[in-house]
Amino acid sequence: MKKDRIKIVTIGGGSSYTPELIEGYIKRKDELPIGEIWLVDIEEGKDKLEIVGNLAKRMVKEAGLDWEVHLTLDRREALKGADFVSTQFRVGLLDARIKDERIPLSHGVMGQETNGAGGMFKAFRTIPVILEIVEDMKELCPDAWLVNFTNPSGMVAEAVLKYGKFEKVVGLCNVPIMHNMMESKVIGKKPEDLYFQYGGLNHHHWHRVFDREGNEVTEQIMDKIFNQDENTVQNITSIPFFEEQIRDLGMLPCAYHRYYYLTDDMLKKELEEFAKGETRAEVVKKVEAELFELYKDPNLKEKPEQLTKRGGAYYSDAACELISSIYNDKKTDMVVSTRNNGALADLPYDCAVEVSSIITAAGPKPMNFGKFPPAERGLLQVMKAMEEVTIEAAVTGDYGKALQAFTLNPLVPSGKVAKVILDEMLVAHKKHLPQFKNAIEKIENTL
Amino acid sequence: MKKDRIKIVTIGGGSSYTPELIEGYIKRKDELPIGEIWLVDIEEGKDKLEIVGNLAKRMVKEAGLDWEVHLTLDRREALKGADFVSTQFRVGLLDARIKDERIPLSHGVMGQETNGAGGMFKAFRTIPVILEIVEDMKELCPDAWLVNFTNPSGMVAEAVLKYGKFEKVVGLCNVPIMHNMMESKVIGKKPEDLYFQYGGLNHHHWHRVFDREGNEVTEQIMDKIFNQDENTVQNITSIPFFEEQIRDLGMLPCAYHRYYYLTDDMLKKELEEFAKGETRAEVVKKVEAELFELYKDPNLKEKPEQLTKRGGAYYSDAACELISSIYNDKKTDMVVSTRNNGALADLPYDCAVEVSSIITAAGPKPMNFGKFPPAERGLLQVMKAMEEVTIEAAVTGDYGKALQAFTLNPLVPSGKVAKVILDEMLVAHKKHLPQFKNAIEKIENTL
Amino acid sequence: MKKDRIKIVTIGGGSSYTPELIEGYIKRKDELPIGEIWLVDIEEGKDKLEIVGNLAKRMVKEAGLDWEVHLTLDRREALKGADFVSTQFRVGLLDARIKDERIPLSHGVMGQETNGAGGMFKAFRTIPVILEIVEDMKELCPDAWLVNFTNPSGMVAEAVLKYGKFEKVVGLCNVPIMHNMMESKVIGKKPEDLYFQYGGLNHHHWHRVFDREGNEVTEQIMDKIFNQDENTVQNITSIPFFEEQIRDLGMLPCAYHRYYYLTDDMLKKELEEFAKGETRAEVVKKVEAELFELYKDPNLKEKPEQLTKRGGAYYSDAACELISSIYNDKKTDMVVSTRNNGALADLPYDCAVEVSSIITAAGPKPMNFGKFPPAERGLLQVMKAMEEVTIEAAVTGDYGKALQAFTLNPLVPSGKVAKVILDEMLVAHKKHLPQFKNAIEKIENTL
Amino acid sequence: MKKDRIKIVTIGGGSSYTPELIEGYIKRKDELPIGEIWLVDIEEGKDKLEIVGNLAKRMVKEAGLDWEVHLTLDRREALKGADFVSTQFRVGLLDARIKDERIPLSHGVMGQETNGAGGMFKAFRTIPVILEIVEDMKELCPDAWLVNFTNPSGMVAEAVLKYGKFEKVVGLCNVPIMHNMMESKVIGKKPEDLYFQYGGLNHHHWHRVFDREGNEVTEQIMDKIFNQDENTVQNITSIPFFEEQIRDLGMLPCAYHRYYYLTDDMLKKELEEFAKGETRAEVVKKVEAELFELYKDPNLKEKPEQLTKRGGAYYSDAACELISSIYNDKKTDMVVSTRNNGALADLPYDCAVEVSSIITAAGPKPMNFGKFPPAERGLLQVMKAMEEVTIEAAVTGDYGKALQAFTLNPLVPSGKVAKVILDEMLVAHKKHLPQFKNAIEKIENTL
Repeated sequence: MKKDRIKIVTIGGGSSYTPELIEGYIKRKDELPIGEIWLVDIEEGKDKLEIVGNLAKRMVKEAGLDWEVHLTLDRREALKGADFVSTQFRVGLLDARIKDERIPLSHGVMGQETNGAGGMFKAFRTIPVILEIVEDMKELCPDAWLVNFTNPSGMVAEAVLKYGKFEKVVGLCNVPIMHNMMESKVIGKKPEDLYFQYGGLNHHHWHRVFDREGNEVTEQIMDKIFNQDENTVQNITSIPFFEEQIRDLGMLPCAYHRYYYLTDDMLKKELEEFAKGETRAEVVKKVEAELFELYKDPNLKEKPEQLTKRGGAYYSDAACELISSIYNDKKTDMVVSTRNNGALADLPYDCAVEVSSIITAAGPKPMNFGKFPPAERGLLQVMKAMEEVTIEAAVTGDYGKALQAFTLNPLVPSGKVAKVILDEMLVAHKKHLPQFKNAIEKIENTL
Repeated sequence: MKKDRIKIVTIGGGSSYTPELIEGYIKRKDELPIGEIWLVDIEEGKDKLEIVGNLAKRMVKEAGLDWEVHLTLDRREALKGADFVSTQFRVGLLDARIKDERIPLSHGVMGQETNGAGGMFKAFRTIPVILEIVEDMKELCPDAWLVNFTNPSGMVAEAVLKYGKFEKVVGLCNVPIMHNMMESKVIGKKPEDLYFQYGGLNHHHWHRVFDREGNEVTEQIMDKIFNQDENTVQNITSIPFFEEQIRDLGMLPCAYHRYYYLTDDMLKKELEEFAKGETRAEVVKKVEAELFELYKDPNLKEKPEQLTKRGGAYYSDAACELISSIYNDKKTDMVVSTRNNGALADLPYDCAVEVSSIITAAGPKPMNFGKFPPAERGLLQVMKAMEEVTIEAAVTGDYGKALQAFTLNPLVPSGKVAKVILDEMLVAHKKHLPQFKNAIEKIENTL
Repeated sequence: MKKDRIKIVTIGGGSSYTPELIEGYIKRKDELPIGEIWLVDIEEGKDKLEIVGNLAKRMVKEAGLDWEVHLTLDRREALKGADFVSTQFRVGLLDARIKDERIPLSHGVMGQETNGAGGMFKAFRTIPVILEIVEDMKELCPDAWLVNFTNPSGMVAEAVLKYGKFEKVVGLCNVPIMHNMMESKVIGKKPEDLYFQYGGLNHHHWHRVFDREGNEVTEQIMDKIFNQDENTVQNITSIPFFEEQIRDLGMLPCAYHRYYYLTDDMLKKELEEFAKGETRAEVVKKVEAELFELYKDPNLKEKPEQLTKRGGAYYSDAACELISSIYNDKKTDMVVSTRNNGALADLPYDCAVEVSSIITAAGPKPMNFGKFPPAERGLLQVMKAMEEVTIEAAVTGDYGKALQAFTLNPLVPSGKVAKVILDEMLVAHKKHLPQFKNAIEKIENTL
Repeated sequence: MKKDRIKIVTIGGGSSYTPELIEGYIKRKDELPIGEIWLVDIEEGKDKLEIVGNLAKRMVKEAGLDWEVHLTLDRREALKGADFVSTQFRVGLLDARIKDERIPLSHGVMGQETNGAGGMFKAFRTIPVILEIVEDMKELCPDAWLVNFTNPSGMVAEAVLKYGKFEKVVGLCNVPIMHNMMESKVIGKKPEDLYFQYGGLNHHHWHRVFDREGNEVTEQIMDKIFNQDENTVQNITSIPFFEEQIRDLGMLPCAYHRYYYLTDDMLKKELEEFAKGETRAEVVKKVEAELFELYKDPNLKEKPEQLTKRGGAYYSDAACELISSIYNDKKTDMVVSTRNNGALADLPYDCAVEVSSIITAAGPKPMNFGKFPPAERGLLQVMKAMEEVTIEAAVTGDYGKALQAFTLNPLVPSGKVAKVILDEMLVAHKKHLPQFKNAIEKIENTL
């Protein structure tokens, strides 16, 4: 792609993350010839869009750049002729996420906004909207790349590929970057001096690590992590994995595997937060309110330090790097959600996977990962099936599929409790689940 | 196989099931030219072997047959020149099963002696013994068929195939027969007037049903099962499945799927039994004691009615039918555990599956089943991975693999509770787990 | 299927085979309650339809049956409410087959009317017609079974499944029956005392044989075939296979494998026949003319002995047996072309394969065949690819695909000669290849 | 790999290519800290080893480098502690290749020293020797990388992986480099400005091309190649492909596909060369003799220009680049023969494939290629099967397998002619085929 000036659209532009995104573009000003940045949001997000959009304008101006920054509620106007569309919107805003977490916890079950019951409802709310966006893109900017970081990022990417029939989509996540940074530190190296090979699903992947001499250092990283004398452990893990299990894997899990390998402790922690009204969503809501107070300051002309604490650091940077890698055909090695096509032999050919890929001008080219040992394979396969059924439920509004997906999910206990939580969440999110209208009415009638 | 007189060996011959087996042979006396029946047991089972063995002799005599019935503790003598070897032994006897069920339940977790924590320990105890038997068979009766009904029947069959490198093994289970009988009744048919196609794993399969006019009647069976007005429901299910979920499956689950689809209610029921000292194992122990009292009666010359209540009805009949089908090349349609070889496209090529097969003189020829929809597929794949890792743990005594297998198992909550149960069970079953010696010592040292 | 009176339609009813079909029905009069038989043909076949149709009527009457036999040129009228539709039509009649064989041979290349250049052109002519028939069936008799024996039977079945989106189709062939008969004779057994397991493609399959004692007798059959002293050899093979090659296969090939394993001798034989004007098609044309002379005799009231010599014996019997097996849910073991669904792990999941199947009321249920050794696998896979590309060419009329298919076909030498033959055949068959109109015009313009 | 000084061994060091290899090392002197180069050859190659080895020494000296250059007939001494072992030996020297080509041609059949009958005999001679080398390497330099360019490079790599059980092997070929250079030139670009994705087997692969703007330019390259007005055609192809066929492929074939797509013209050309005593082997033999005359000149201190004409240009450069990429963890994008592991979904998981890979310190990491369309897939699969059976024949000396492999090979007509050629070649190469001793004796006895 060698246009002189590119147009980038961000849907959910009123997000508190936007300054990080703008910072990422500014950092790459010499390689990314941006012409226009369009920040799009919806009516309910208008105020936040104004606040963060004006900060974005001040940042661009401070950097001495002539980029146009547009703020709009008109998505279609923004999409016209776009080169890259990044999506970071949150249907129902943080209040929806609070429900995603608190309703399951009120029944003693983990919420987990990406892969648990919460994440499944996020998929139910998000997928119909992303499919609308894709329809607009096909009409208004059919050659643009869609760079998604709305969670659950893997399911959203699969929905776009399978049901949106749109190929130019990449799902992003900051988890691999965090691992690269932490694990290289643990063995006293820089990330760029190690080769990380990732394979799996979004928030559910494993990886192996090699050094520049060709040695696999995966075991060496485990040695350091499980060596109790060193204080590196604390940096890596709030709740430590079982060493015997990780050793048996032969690969490094991702941080989210704690939910699967250490379920009881993770649940206990979440229930404590729930009791204090400090679930992750509630904490984030407070942090965001503070951030927007900061953003209002007309003297603020750069990303404030506090944003880093918001969580999700490096997310936006990953997006900017991806955009630059596609634009400049950089052949960067990144971990993205993309179509499998056999890169992970244990999963369906046409599903979305998260896998180390070379980012070219023609998009991500996945490295072949091959087959997993049974211990990884079984979990991976049940998660993918859960994703497939969740996406189908999101598209069709079929209650049976939603219940099935809950049953498949290893983070949701099966049986009556699953049904009760499902029903309560459907009713609570009613406004954002038009596809489940019939199912919700039926539930309301039997209450 | 057309020998004039065949030799059948039953390992675990002192089992309370033996009379059913003998009855099954007697029923088939015209098609099965039995010469010798050898009932083998171990020192601890000597008394039971005497009691049940003498009943067997009386039954054969009463039937006017000249079959020799041998009782022995010398397995190798029995195996010499055998044509069929059936295995129904229970390492550690019912006391081990009581531990399998009560230890997990004491931590609020399901025991489940076939696919749960209990079943995994049964695999740990059984697999080393079956592999010894297979070694003996290779030497003493290499052409004999091994017909196994010791649970977990699928894992035992896979261990024999993969680690025993012995091809002539068939795993059996009575669950499909029960389904055939109940479901045909529900729609007012006879089992022989329906065509059932089963696919999956032992105690974890689904099936579709067709009538003799070529119509699929799977939905029709669901209609009857979920029609609340009819009293058929009670006959079928003690705890009813969620209709929306079963409809979404598009296939009929097996009774054991309750553990996966209705986990909380099943657990609640087991915890109640646990509190009353009436876990299944404890109930069975009492029933067995009563049965052996009956068996002692020298006037008893046929299978007593009470045995039917023991559970596991049709098990022995299935074994006799299988033996006769192989001997007579009957081309019977039976559901057996056998090597996959692609019959279930979603599972590894070389694993054991439970699948509708045509039983020929050359053993079972599986019907092709193809791919499952994602809802079945995900659960099936994680269960198979759990089985593979369990078998590996059973063979190697590797603690990490055992913990991994516990984590993969959907019936065992992951995290500390899994580890605590695992450790406690390893120590409790110490006597029957020589392969885990090192791991158990380590646990004992840290207690 | 339990209708009181069934309606059977035969498209290509004017075929010389029809008497065999009628005889097959009469033989099964006690199990097949036929109401109506409709023989359908096209204008050009009207005379033959009259002749053979009247013979059919006489045969039915002679058997004392009240079946209605209708002769018609109106396919749609015939299809209305049909229960079974069998297809044995030949687009372009035998003259087209003569071209299929003579044109390639005129360039020193095998014609081979099923899998060679001739068979590909037969597919080009037949597939558009079968797809029309299927459209009619969807409208007029959507629940009927389509039983096809028009060659290339496997490609026709695949076209119906993939492009016609019609599931109730079965492809038939008499080759397996011939093998069963000959090979059982070679080892002094009856076919019903052996178990034959077939897998592959139409006219391109391999099989293994087991006796009723469970022993594989595949090697034993080879021993007899390759034992030069016995005169059995001559019965089996006009041109003998290389023993070393067949031994290495570990399975028995089908008679058509001579074209692939003994290409030069087969070609030599065909070229000799070509020189004498006695290609198979020319011989058949003469035989047919004689047969129709016989059929005209109003005193002929049964299938004449001469028909057996026509070749294709047992074809019609196979069709009648298939129809009866579906109607009566007979669970017969037959070799049919049906959807793969993983039964042959080496071939695409959704293609058509020819495989031993159990014929139920719900259609054929394939036995799982698993993977082939590389020697069989490579040939099988290139043939399937050839079939897929041929079918695509037949459906689209794309010249590049047709050329590609010629190149893939191991019976057609690649390069200029392939192109020359392709062009000449396209022009020669112009009348029956409307889909290739553009390509043919282009060729004619450059001539 | 970060040793200060590395040891490189070249087996077949007396080859005429060695100066190119030395030049490649010298070009990379700043990135490759070579300590020792060992050129190994056998007794028959001693003279050539002396000549070319001394030239190598002069070249190194001229470049002002302190590298030790050793010439030896003692392979084991050379291998001790090696870091890289490159193999370019030719069992039976060029005289064997002359037989490989002339014997088939004497029967009107293509020789083709890589994938045809000639290539298969090269595999028969080479594989036992490479397996011996691998055994030595396991003992003497188990951490070294084996970089093979002895043809048939893909089969040799597969033999090392499967039968040698040695993982650190990479097969190399110069064909992809030639394509990159020619095709970029055709559309007026530099190779480094295009992204080539290759997949297939050695001398049997296809590729797609993308530019730095992300557009696929595969079709654009075809446009140029098939545009008759431009004189680019001549540069690309001596015998032009059929445009319709290449368009249908949707990918670019490799130059060797001419043998499969244009068989008759290629054979015609070879037969003409055969008649003139100018088969490729004979021409090369003359060129080599001239080269060695040049090499003798003590004043020659660099690679002579004439070597480029020898063919096989860029071969050695590819090897040097590969070695440097591994040593320096360069992440270069190269096309190599390596273990499939699912990168090509259409081929067995554990076979060797030739595929675009990222070369890291830990060896090649293949890019995922996915599935091919049927036109490519069929040919690819039969070729791989041919390779597998050829390798098995090479390892076992089984005559049936050799005949089977000949039958599978699309370049060898099947039937008697195949057998005659096979027998004649076995006898002709007797000295270098100890594993076929029994088979050869049998042939000789029947002559």
